[in-house]
Amino acid sequence: MRYLDENAIKNIAVGAAVLGTGGGGDPYIGELMALQAIKEHGPVKMLEVDEVPDDALVVPIGMMGAPTVLFEKAPGENEAKNAFQLMEEHLGREIFATMPIEIGGVNSLLPVAIAARLGLPIINVDGMGRAFPELQMVTFYLDGISNSPLVIADERGNTSILQTIDNHWSERIARNITVQMGGSSTVAQYSMSGKQVKNSGVAKSLTFAEGIGKIIRKSKQNPIQEVLSFTSGYSLFEGKVIDIDRKTSTGFARGIATIEGMNEDKGKTLSLHFQNEFLLATENDKPVCITPDLICLLDNETGQPITTEGLRYGVRCTVIGIACNEKWRTEKGIETVGPRYFGYDLEYIPIEIITSEEVI
Amino acid sequence: MRYLDENAIKNIAVGAAVLGTGGGGDPYIGELMALQAIKEHGPVKMLEVDEVPDDALVVPIGMMGAPTVLFEKAPGENEAKNAFQLMEEHLGREIFATMPIEIGGVNSLLPVAIAARLGLPIINVDGMGRAFPELQMVTFYLDGISNSPLVIADERGNTSILQTIDNHWSERIARNITVQMGGSSTVAQYSMSGKQVKNSGVAKSLTFAEGIGKIIRKSKQNPIQEVLSFTSGYSLFEGKVIDIDRKTSTGFARGIATIEGMNEDKGKTLSLHFQNEFLLATENDKPVCITPDLICLLDNETGQPITTEGLRYGVRCTVIGIACNEKWRTEKGIETVGPRYFGYDLEYIPIEIITSEEVI
Repeated sequence: MRYLDENAIKNIAVGAAVLGTGGGGDPYIGELMALQAIKEHGPVKMLEVDEVPDDALVVPIGMMGAPTVLFEKAPGENEAKNAFQLMEEHLGREIFATMPIEIGGVNSLLPVAIAARLGLPIINVDGMGRAFPELQMVTFYLDGISNSPLVIADERGNTSILQTIDNHWSERIARNITVQMGGSSTVAQYSMSGKQVKNSGVAKSLTFAEGIGKIIRKSKQNPIQEVLSFTSGYSLFEGKVIDIDRKTSTGFARGIATIEGMNEDKGKTLSLHFQNEFLLATENDKPVCITPDLICLLDNETGQPITTEGLRYGVRCTVIGIACNEKWRTEKGIETVGPRYFGYDLEYIPIEIITSEEVI
Repeated sequence: MRYLDENAIKNIAVGAAVLGTGGGGDPYIGELMALQAIKEHGPVKMLEVDEVPDDALVVPIGMMGAPTVLFEKAPGENEAKNAFQLMEEHLGREIFATMPIEIGGVNSLLPVAIAARLGLPIINVDGMGRAFPELQMVTFYLDGISNSPLVIADERGNTSILQTIDNHWSERIARNITVQMGGSSTVAQYSMSGKQVKNSGVAKSLTFAEGIGKIIRKSKQNPIQEVLSFTSGYSLFEGKVIDIDRKTSTGFARGIATIEGMNEDKGKTLSLHFQNEFLLATENDKPVCITPDLICLLDNETGQPITTEGLRYGVRCTVIGIACNEKWRTEKGIETVGPRYFGYDLEYIPIEIITSEEVI
């Protein structure tokens, strides 16, 4: 157990934006919300999964919607408080702690802000070890945990409690409500026991993000090597963004960014395919990193992560790849978040294997 | 207080399809559901509004969605039972009685079937005195009654409890969920006290429908004159359906039917505009009956009502108009269900006035 203070929050914000693989909303908004909340209520108690009683009620909270919309519609905390209150009333139990559903900009720090405001601890765990665009894309789902009852709330005061027959139905209905709500919403879901969180979560992801953020923030020069070493990651490509083909439809920010190689990669071109998150990197149609492995885009000068909505023409950047949590590499994991689910017609190959093939 | 038996149900089915002004789903399905339910559970107790205690909890129930879809997706009763159970749990109170939200095919008799199966009484009242396509289009809304919490359920077992800031938001979100659920859903909403039902409902609409149905069913010849006399209605046009321009989009069955005049109306053409219900009848672009007044289409030979999804080329029919309940003729009533709300650019003129102008 420890407390998350201002410095920890700033580190997590940067690191979570790296692990967020371009998705999860603007990290600056999540950071501001969490900083404001601890300024008013003091540092937030963070528990390790082992410190959570087996029968405690844990409810993750996060934003749903397209990041490009999140950026314009600052997520308030009232809807999160509404959602938690409604969840407690509906379950007839008090919430013991909250946690992020994913590690991404807004969604790793929104729960910290809510925890501060409601006097709840936050747990050092999440359901992805990265960010993904759909509700059923969490390690809890792989273990058969339902995301019902799901509480969805908007900033106007509209709420809905979904109870569905499977997590794909929740995704489908909640996504549609989110579009109606103006493109983003706040969602409390995957109510779990402490034991379920322990067994099915990705532990220590907040402090993993914190470690990455610390490296980037303290660095005076390009910290990418140090990030690669801390995360056991792979440097995939270095270049300049020369094209961004973007469209926001049915609640997602989709597109392809094209990066023209520099230095060692001069003369080559990398395509970065995204749907809220970066999901596939290809060089001349040959995949170099494939979802669920993490594709992160870092600014060459500062090492700062670049989100899909922060992509700008001319940015000089390095694409790095990080192996995903092993839970994703099961058959059900690949079915849930592998390339075919997102419409990319290719087999998942772990980044270690792609990289070693390249060397040969 | 009296009991609704097989004969009463058959009469209500026919009469409600007349008052349903073409909407509310296939009356045959509602009739079958109610007949099956009373066969298994015995006749249903029907209360007059005066017999309902002021503080009793009354919850109307109905189907939402496009009638063309309802026809293919027989509404089960399990989702209605789910919805009621969820509503009781959510409100922490037992439901005293149910009632139809509107008088239309499925929606006047679904509550009778549910009442039989759950051992609840049904109240001789509804919220429209006809059928309308949107959730906020009820006389309760005109008196400021909220339709939250709204419980929506599908036949798979998916449910959602909406709590919104106004009834338009409920309509918007529930309509979208309905589309996701495959085009139709079961909705419990407008939970009210007995006193609210008394003050804000359209009383005696089930027995009004029963009276119309009785005339049509017992008649051996064209019963339209007798229906006009019973309802104080107006005969507007007699002819043959020569064109139906139909499209089902965003959960509604929209279109225009064209009727070529016969007998006294020979040489004239009537256009019937519908959006689930018949909303506007025009002769050479001159309105002859305008929502919220009722436009009903009756088969010339049998007097049987024709629904929007039952419209067929070549059918010989009579269009009749009936004055709507006076609650609809207020400023808020016309704003809510008048022609402009449905996108028809004209003023509402009560049918009595249009008809008297025609005579002059």
